[in-house]
Amino acid sequence: MDLRTLITSAAHRHRQATAVVDGARRLSFRDAHERINRLANGLAGLGLRKGDRVASLQFNSHEVLEVDLACVKSGLARVLLNARAAAADHAYILADCGARALVFGPEFADDVEQLRPAVPGIEHWISTRGSGAGTVDYEALLAAATPDEPSAHVGGEDLHSLYYTSGTTGRPKGVMLVQRNWLALVRNHLIDIFPPRADDVLLHAAPMTHASGAFIIAHWIRGVPQVVLPRWDEAECLAAIQRERVTTLFLAPTMVIKLVAHPGLDRYDVSSLGNVVYGGAPMPVERLREALERFGPVFRQGYGLWEAPQLIITLPPEEHVTGGDPTRMARLASAGRPITFAEVRVVDDGGRPVAPGQRGEIVSRGDHVMLGYWQRPDATAEVLKDGWLHTGDIATVDEDGYIYVVDRKKEMIISGGSNIYPREVEEVLHTHPAVLEVAVVGVPDDTWGESVKAVLTLKPGLAATEQEILVWCRERIAGYKRPRSVEIVGELPKSAYGKILRREVREPYWQGRTRRV
Amino acid sequence: MDLRTLITSAAHRHRQATAVVDGARRLSFRDAHERINRLANGLAGLGLRKGDRVASLQFNSHEVLEVDLACVKSGLARVLLNARAAAADHAYILADCGARALVFGPEFADDVEQLRPAVPGIEHWISTRGSGAGTVDYEALLAAATPDEPSAHVGGEDLHSLYYTSGTTGRPKGVMLVQRNWLALVRNHLIDIFPPRADDVLLHAAPMTHASGAFIIAHWIRGVPQVVLPRWDEAECLAAIQRERVTTLFLAPTMVIKLVAHPGLDRYDVSSLGNVVYGGAPMPVERLREALERFGPVFRQGYGLWEAPQLIITLPPEEHVTGGDPTRMARLASAGRPITFAEVRVVDDGGRPVAPGQRGEIVSRGDHVMLGYWQRPDATAEVLKDGWLHTGDIATVDEDGYIYVVDRKKEMIISGGSNIYPREVEEVLHTHPAVLEVAVVGVPDDTWGESVKAVLTLKPGLAATEQEILVWCRERIAGYKRPRSVEIVGELPKSAYGKILRREVREPYWQGRTRRV
Repeated sequence: MDLRTLITSAAHRHRQATAVVDGARRLSFRDAHERINRLANGLAGLGLRKGDRVASLQFNSHEVLEVDLACVKSGLARVLLNARAAAADHAYILADCGARALVFGPEFADDVEQLRPAVPGIEHWISTRGSGAGTVDYEALLAAATPDEPSAHVGGEDLHSLYYTSGTTGRPKGVMLVQRNWLALVRNHLIDIFPPRADDVLLHAAPMTHASGAFIIAHWIRGVPQVVLPRWDEAECLAAIQRERVTTLFLAPTMVIKLVAHPGLDRYDVSSLGNVVYGGAPMPVERLREALERFGPVFRQGYGLWEAPQLIITLPPEEHVTGGDPTRMARLASAGRPITFAEVRVVDDGGRPVAPGQRGEIVSRGDHVMLGYWQRPDATAEVLKDGWLHTGDIATVDEDGYIYVVDRKKEMIISGGSNIYPREVEEVLHTHPAVLEVAVVGVPDDTWGESVKAVLTLKPGLAATEQEILVWCRERIAGYKRPRSVEIVGELPKSAYGKILRREVREPYWQGRTRRV
Repeated sequence: MDLRTLITSAAHRHRQATAVVDGARRLSFRDAHERINRLANGLAGLGLRKGDRVASLQFNSHEVLEVDLACVKSGLARVLLNARAAAADHAYILADCGARALVFGPEFADDVEQLRPAVPGIEHWISTRGSGAGTVDYEALLAAATPDEPSAHVGGEDLHSLYYTSGTTGRPKGVMLVQRNWLALVRNHLIDIFPPRADDVLLHAAPMTHASGAFIIAHWIRGVPQVVLPRWDEAECLAAIQRERVTTLFLAPTMVIKLVAHPGLDRYDVSSLGNVVYGGAPMPVERLREALERFGPVFRQGYGLWEAPQLIITLPPEEHVTGGDPTRMARLASAGRPITFAEVRVVDDGGRPVAPGQRGEIVSRGDHVMLGYWQRPDATAEVLKDGWLHTGDIATVDEDGYIYVVDRKKEMIISGGSNIYPREVEEVLHTHPAVLEVAVVGVPDDTWGESVKAVLTLKPGLAATEQEILVWCRERIAGYKRPRSVEIVGELPKSAYGKILRREVREPYWQGRTRRV
């Protein structure tokens, strides 16, 4: 069984059902599938062949889904650019992956003009809205191509996609996923992440270039309609949930927090929700409790990374327990347990599983694990050892196999010889009633090397002073890891996917220093 | 991911939960797993090595499950003997597969004495109840072995099991399944056959040597308790469903029919049922309607065969529609649609998919398809062509992909040059109010070569004469395929798994004839 057969069979099986809802446009599986085939054949007509990289620079849209599935059918490696990033970032990635084509949405016409001279390797600039000099019109490409099943022979070891990951240091690296990896991801979604619910409806409220987009095929196979919001907006998201009776969606933790804090929340009917997957960044337990109180037991945590896509540890809704048995309640702080078909361990430096409660690194093995980093054999060798992907995440595991992510190995603070994991300190700060979001980082300290600093934002309408928070910490956090300084800011720097960027919080304090610890 | 890791991880995860209920004995996952490891190590201590065949002759019991999982861990190929078959049948299979060990239950001590001289190749006769001369005591074997994880290195291409299938002609053939096949089966069960339900409980009421036993691993992984009934008995089955709040079980169609006809049915609470899988033989639509009326929408049809295990086409409970939309209702007569990860087609003699409504042969491809028949390359080549398993089952497929099994290719009746599929005639006979079970076969006819004969049983308390039924058929069945004779009998010959054996019904009429058509 291959991805393409799955896609084609499902298209036939569900052909009269709605596959995509994008604004006023509703495409049936038959129509969407015909467009996908036309796109695949159109791309082949442009001379694109199996293994070629096709990039996409779009906000969420039905075209993102079409590019996704057309690339699968053609064996083209899709490269999803982050719509929130700058043209220079795109240029780096496009050049690094050697893209031959770029599909772009109307919002990116200016970026494209900057990119043309910067990335001469791109032969085809494909606009989803209209044409122009040196631009292929997406709809014209489809109209001129046949709707027949594409003829490419695609195997499990053919490239499926490159996902660019920046990590905390260095230039972005392209995570190479082959079709076998993506098939494993789909299988894992079907078994562990999306238990079928009656009348399922998926909403893409978070970027389809990121986690949300990874959900496309599993839902396509099940015949589930996928509702597309062009970009993240709390009110739009809530309105779509109510209007389309959405049952499942992906949200970054920051999006969950924003929804809970949304002043108009009570005006929307969100009772259709049943499986709201959050992940991609730590979810503070206090914020999670608030979300559960407001939305009910509909949340599912997912832990994963593109190197071992997409979710390999999960805490299902029924294990989001906020009352009763303290053992079960404590698991709210965990990422959950490994999914069925991914081997996941927490190991010491020698690769041996750690004892319950001991810290180690999360590693994973299985058909989902990436082939390696694109043209970066050294970086690949650092993380792929004997088939095990080393995630760089430090965690503990309890007697029952629940995994508690402590922090990124590289974001550990070393102060006076002690190892401090920022997330642990952040979790305590989150229990302060006025704190909304927080980043704990290490800043230069002549005595201790680094000292702990908390940079935070406050909940709307609530007040606290930096001094008050320092005092508050003194009562709750052991001396060696207690923040020595606190700074209240209006906003924290975040990635396009809503992840708080500690390295950007940290950076200004280290300006001009050669050694960054 | 391999089967062994799945088994071990689940044992740890669910260690305090109940894994098996066998009479008064309740084994936790921890205890059952320890026994499995001990058995695997004990078998290794006897000198059994990866690839060796270990046979099992038992009624349903916790030991069947233990042998099943211990063989997986050790890479031993398990051969499950049919408890209802004769010693001569066992002898043939044991010699054919070259079994080195036989695990047997107390009911089979006499058979074993007959088998000892007949199958000298067996080195270890392992009794689950007590020892004797030349017999290894199962419990002593476990007690003397360590509970450590067995050390065998087992891969996906190592033999998992041999399933002996008799087919309609010739000696039984051993279907070779490797661990990769069984892993695919488990994956398919998890995705398509057993949608997780709250508080699932599995009942083995049908033989674990057959379909029911194939459910063991998927439920073990999910942490679902497995209740074991030694052998099929309607009252015991109903009592167990009520007592253990059973949610899911496998039943042969004849078992479903027997349950519905059971006079004490109303005394039992069967409201816990949610996913009753039936298959292995045709299910007459009229009997299915009765079952749905009585039990509610809890039935799932599964079509499969050991060569392409285990269920590759399924009609889920929600598609068992008995009222409303006639299109949906008509699907009660279908086996359903292919499961997600099995490619299934209905093809003509040239291997091309047939048009909707046209007859063709069901073929299947995927990781589930057997390696071949044990030491029968010619028989293998007949059914495995270009990776496609040819099932020998004739079917039609409708516009929506629902597959309607017409009949076994080899059981087709040819009368006056017309092809007649017995099942089609049987389905009509099943609509007669007094008919309980029926077998339609071809009997010798000097004019037409074969003529159609119906052999049937009546429902308890209802009466009909052969002449009445002949008249009744005349009004409902086209002349060329109408039964020319009817015989009412007390019982129809059935396989140990409850499948009506048309070839045994047919046989007496062809006695002394050299040509059997």
